[in-house]
Amino acid sequence: TWNPRNVVVAGQDAARYIENGMYRYIPYNRLFLQTEKMVIDGYGEFEAYPNRDSLHYISVYKLSGIPTLERGTLRNVGYCAAWNVFVKLGWTDDTYKIVDSEKLSYADLLRAYLPDSKKNNLIDRVAEFMGEESDSETMKKIEWLGIFEEEKAGIPNASPAQILQHLLEQKWKLMPGEKDMIVMYHHFIYTINGVKKTLSSSLVVKGEDEIKTAMAKTVGLPLGIAARLILNGKINLKGVRIPVEKEIYDPVMEELQKLGIHFTEKE
Amino acid sequence: TWNPRNVVVAGQDAARYIENGMYRYIPYNRLFLQTEKMVIDGYGEFEAYPNRDSLHYISVYKLSGIPTLERGTLRNVGYCAAWNVFVKLGWTDDTYKIVDSEKLSYADLLRAYLPDSKKNNLIDRVAEFMGEESDSETMKKIEWLGIFEEEKAGIPNASPAQILQHLLEQKWKLMPGEKDMIVMYHHFIYTINGVKKTLSSSLVVKGEDEIKTAMAKTVGLPLGIAARLILNGKINLKGVRIPVEKEIYDPVMEELQKLGIHFTEKE
Repeated sequence: TWNPRNVVVAGQDAARYIENGMYRYIPYNRLFLQTEKMVIDGYGEFEAYPNRDSLHYISVYKLSGIPTLERGTLRNVGYCAAWNVFVKLGWTDDTYKIVDSEKLSYADLLRAYLPDSKKNNLIDRVAEFMGEESDSETMKKIEWLGIFEEEKAGIPNASPAQILQHLLEQKWKLMPGEKDMIVMYHHFIYTINGVKKTLSSSLVVKGEDEIKTAMAKTVGLPLGIAARLILNGKINLKGVRIPVEKEIYDPVMEELQKLGIHFTEKE
Repeated sequence: TWNPRNVVVAGQDAARYIENGMYRYIPYNRLFLQTEKMVIDGYGEFEAYPNRDSLHYISVYKLSGIPTLERGTLRNVGYCAAWNVFVKLGWTDDTYKIVDSEKLSYADLLRAYLPDSKKNNLIDRVAEFMGEESDSETMKKIEWLGIFEEEKAGIPNASPAQILQHLLEQKWKLMPGEKDMIVMYHHFIYTINGVKKTLSSSLVVKGEDEIKTAMAKTVGLPLGIAARLILNGKINLKGVRIPVEKEIYDPVMEELQKLGIHFTEKE
């Protein structure tokens, strides 16, 4: 339930993080291939891929010298393999336009991007291209999305990313009564007074319906709360701020807790 | 013998061309995988990969409506598979800096980019990563280049592309007496007076030594000839021009022919 455009074009930079004192880099073309499984208590398995520049957060959170800091995005299991079809095709590129884009169906666009093959059937060609069986979970997902259909996006002068975005907007719509879910998970390993500790902290928020989504709540409520705190003189910081200051996050998180948005911690 | 920086960062855009009336697109991550073999009379086999935006040349050469126009780069056989190691690693990226780049050896940089593996030996890890045997032709090429060595590039605040460029500059130096070779090949298919014709036109230029390179000659001579033609009033065109005009290319090519730079045509 995030901005579909951001889903398509996000994270085209290489991912950068630090692990056991070693800086690590993953280019965009491998991002959705090198995923890690994570289990969130009560919600099962998710897959994580590293998200852009984790190193940036070392200074933001004043963690200079930290040996491991990785920031990633969690997805339902199977999402990354399916998304990788678009990455490998080249459909997330927003830097150039498709000629006569308004005349091309999704199937035409596939033909324009697939390498030559002895196979004729488009599903078989994509399966061959991805090294998948034609009826694999990944293939079922992208087939459901409609990329094999002779239907036109109909957008003139569109980049491949804009056409993909248009397709997602049709199929990823929340229908009446449908709910979204947001999962955030932190895993800390640290030593205090010579004792090594592990702390996990997770937040799961479900939407109420297709309007009052978890995304709307988790983005909108902190903003509304902070605005009121400023208007009532409870936050006195000036200038553009991010909420890494106690004066902001303490009262905001306190109120969020009352609204059912809170982390569950486990040492 | 082209500018090494351009070799590293060139063509990071998707390739675009038209083939049998159909526009085709290949993203950067597949560019060095989808190559085509070409035979140049007397010089054997080369491999070609599509080069950036061929469609741009449709208007430049006034070829509106042409059903097939592909522009590519020719390489010695095996080059593209070896270059693809760098693309897949993420080493051609010039958009971000490596932390502590001056402290890292080429082997360190490899470790920073390779996915985790059960193997310890770096050569085996790269071979596994690329789906190659450890002693394949591709592996031999990149081993020769020195990417497994514990030697430091020593460049502070460098992008991966800058480190790769530095490595290439050490190893791709022309030694005294060494010669370069430039190959250009055009293949035309056209119909005139109802008769289908095929014309191939190829240019091969070899350098004389490590200074008078084929690259220096083919870039420098046309420029020098054109400059003299302008100074002597033989070219009267004004403004910034590219040599698609008869007034420029006719006298320039005539003089180049005398200097041994000419196309061989075969109908």
